[in-house]
Amino acid sequence: MAVYTEVSDTELSRFIAGYGLGELQSYKGIAEGVENTNYVVQTAKGPFILTLYEKRVAPTDLPFFLGLMEHLAAKGVSCPTPLHDAEGRNLSELAGRAAAIVTFLQGVSVSRPSIAHCGAVGRALAELHLAGKDFPLQRTNALGPAGWQPLFDRFANQADEIAPGLQQTITAELAGLQAAWPKGLPEGVIHADLFPDNVFFLGGKFSGLIDFYFACNDALAYDIAICLNAWCFETDHTFNVEKGRALLTGYSAVRPLSAAEREAMPLLARGAAMRFLLTRAHDWIHHDKSALVSPHDPIDFLRRLHFHQTIRSIADYGLQ
Amino acid sequence: MAVYTEVSDTELSRFIAGYGLGELQSYKGIAEGVENTNYVVQTAKGPFILTLYEKRVAPTDLPFFLGLMEHLAAKGVSCPTPLHDAEGRNLSELAGRAAAIVTFLQGVSVSRPSIAHCGAVGRALAELHLAGKDFPLQRTNALGPAGWQPLFDRFANQADEIAPGLQQTITAELAGLQAAWPKGLPEGVIHADLFPDNVFFLGGKFSGLIDFYFACNDALAYDIAICLNAWCFETDHTFNVEKGRALLTGYSAVRPLSAAEREAMPLLARGAAMRFLLTRAHDWIHHDKSALVSPHDPIDFLRRLHFHQTIRSIADYGLQ
Repeated sequence: MAVYTEVSDTELSRFIAGYGLGELQSYKGIAEGVENTNYVVQTAKGPFILTLYEKRVAPTDLPFFLGLMEHLAAKGVSCPTPLHDAEGRNLSELAGRAAAIVTFLQGVSVSRPSIAHCGAVGRALAELHLAGKDFPLQRTNALGPAGWQPLFDRFANQADEIAPGLQQTITAELAGLQAAWPKGLPEGVIHADLFPDNVFFLGGKFSGLIDFYFACNDALAYDIAICLNAWCFETDHTFNVEKGRALLTGYSAVRPLSAAEREAMPLLARGAAMRFLLTRAHDWIHHDKSALVSPHDPIDFLRRLHFHQTIRSIADYGLQ
Repeated sequence: MAVYTEVSDTELSRFIAGYGLGELQSYKGIAEGVENTNYVVQTAKGPFILTLYEKRVAPTDLPFFLGLMEHLAAKGVSCPTPLHDAEGRNLSELAGRAAAIVTFLQGVSVSRPSIAHCGAVGRALAELHLAGKDFPLQRTNALGPAGWQPLFDRFANQADEIAPGLQQTITAELAGLQAAWPKGLPEGVIHADLFPDNVFFLGGKFSGLIDFYFACNDALAYDIAICLNAWCFETDHTFNVEKGRALLTGYSAVRPLSAAEREAMPLLARGAAMRFLLTRAHDWIHHDKSALVSPHDPIDFLRRLHFHQTIRSIADYGLQ
């Protein structure tokens, strides 16, 4: 959520000329994306988003992310689409950083999703999964079950600073999840971070998805489980079953769930809660004190985890 | 240079409806303005800049700043113009902050001004001074000569941490400036912070001025002296007399300088260098360690001050 790399007018003018975008009319660094530097760039051809990839993004992952956005857009998914420069590349260099310029997506993210928003995001997620089916590149989910224990090890002995007993809770839950984690579910490209700030609406209607920088190959139903955590809890951390129903029904209308996926949902939801509990707890303890961004409270996902531990079937999330 | 205050989509939609701007299409927090929170807001009526005034801006100064932009724009100065809401107000409230929405000015600021840019900024500054002549509100220059000693007192005993002997240099120079500071020069509204990042160009041509949050009433020639400091030194801190000539000639072509103003210029330039040396030195010592913005190096203005101390007449700045 910051501009880490400054770009001068002359280097940016030269850069956009390479994409045939005409004259540079304005550019503003925007407070979006925790990992990268982003600018809204107004050109003779309209507005675009310029992203400079900072050190936390692995350069070897960039062809996956950019290729995926292009693949999805070509299949009709509304998402930012990378432009190609005169040499046909969607990835270039600017101000000493790997850089890409993508289309500007209209819409605003909603701070308080309604039931209708949840239905729309369910449908959009299923469409994303279908469109991603034949995307040829692969990327392992670095934040999947195999990554949880090593991540936990980096702050386990300080976990109780966040909440008394948290170290023991996570240790027990991780053991349970590793033992029971579902295998053989339908896999494909997942967004893996489809929180409300990554979904745009325009006049109440879904207008598109952004931020594919956690996308990877994993169980499709796990992506739904992430959305249940991200969209269907109220600010008091209670689960809103109407929102769950809307999300799951919306998804199923586009891509019906298999029996195995339905059965796995409570466990997948626990895993998804664990994944965000772990990254948030890690950032809570290790966050850069000089950053303006205050870390998200990990307790929100501990509460979600406790809720999912009480769930026996997908019916409890609202899907009959 | 940060988004201090988050605004939700629902409150922003309601806010822009009050200005008759139609549907909210997108909004992005931008990394502009050290003191306030700014968003680029795309509406059915085009892009606008939304500013939320944070605590460092005195609420009593806002009618001056907003009124000035409106006054200047009405006189043909290219600058952001505040919009009026349905009740006719140019100042409202949003997310618990005083808030205003202003027109979006196209253009980019130049990181390395050319001689032609300096000529254009000279002309623009003179036009600003003429247009501001009959602006009825008044604002004292809090960072004028009377404010320098109290500002210095806040870090004087740490000044030598920046450069050995700096405390003594500033003490002596302040005494000299107070004794010799010119009186009776033509006064009016000055921008007081017209650095290259506050001037926009489009296709090499001047397109407008932004950031009036230091504007105040003071000697007009002092504003020129600020621009000599801000525009006419190279990155190695040497003065470029061709840039000085372009700036002063550009200014004089629109508003000729009186004999007293010409004579006062070397002293005004020393004062302007002192003003930025003091604020930068203060921020260097007292800056919030948690802020992402690194403070500007005060030494740049110590070097300028030393240069101006050697100047005997405005001819040395390039004006015959």
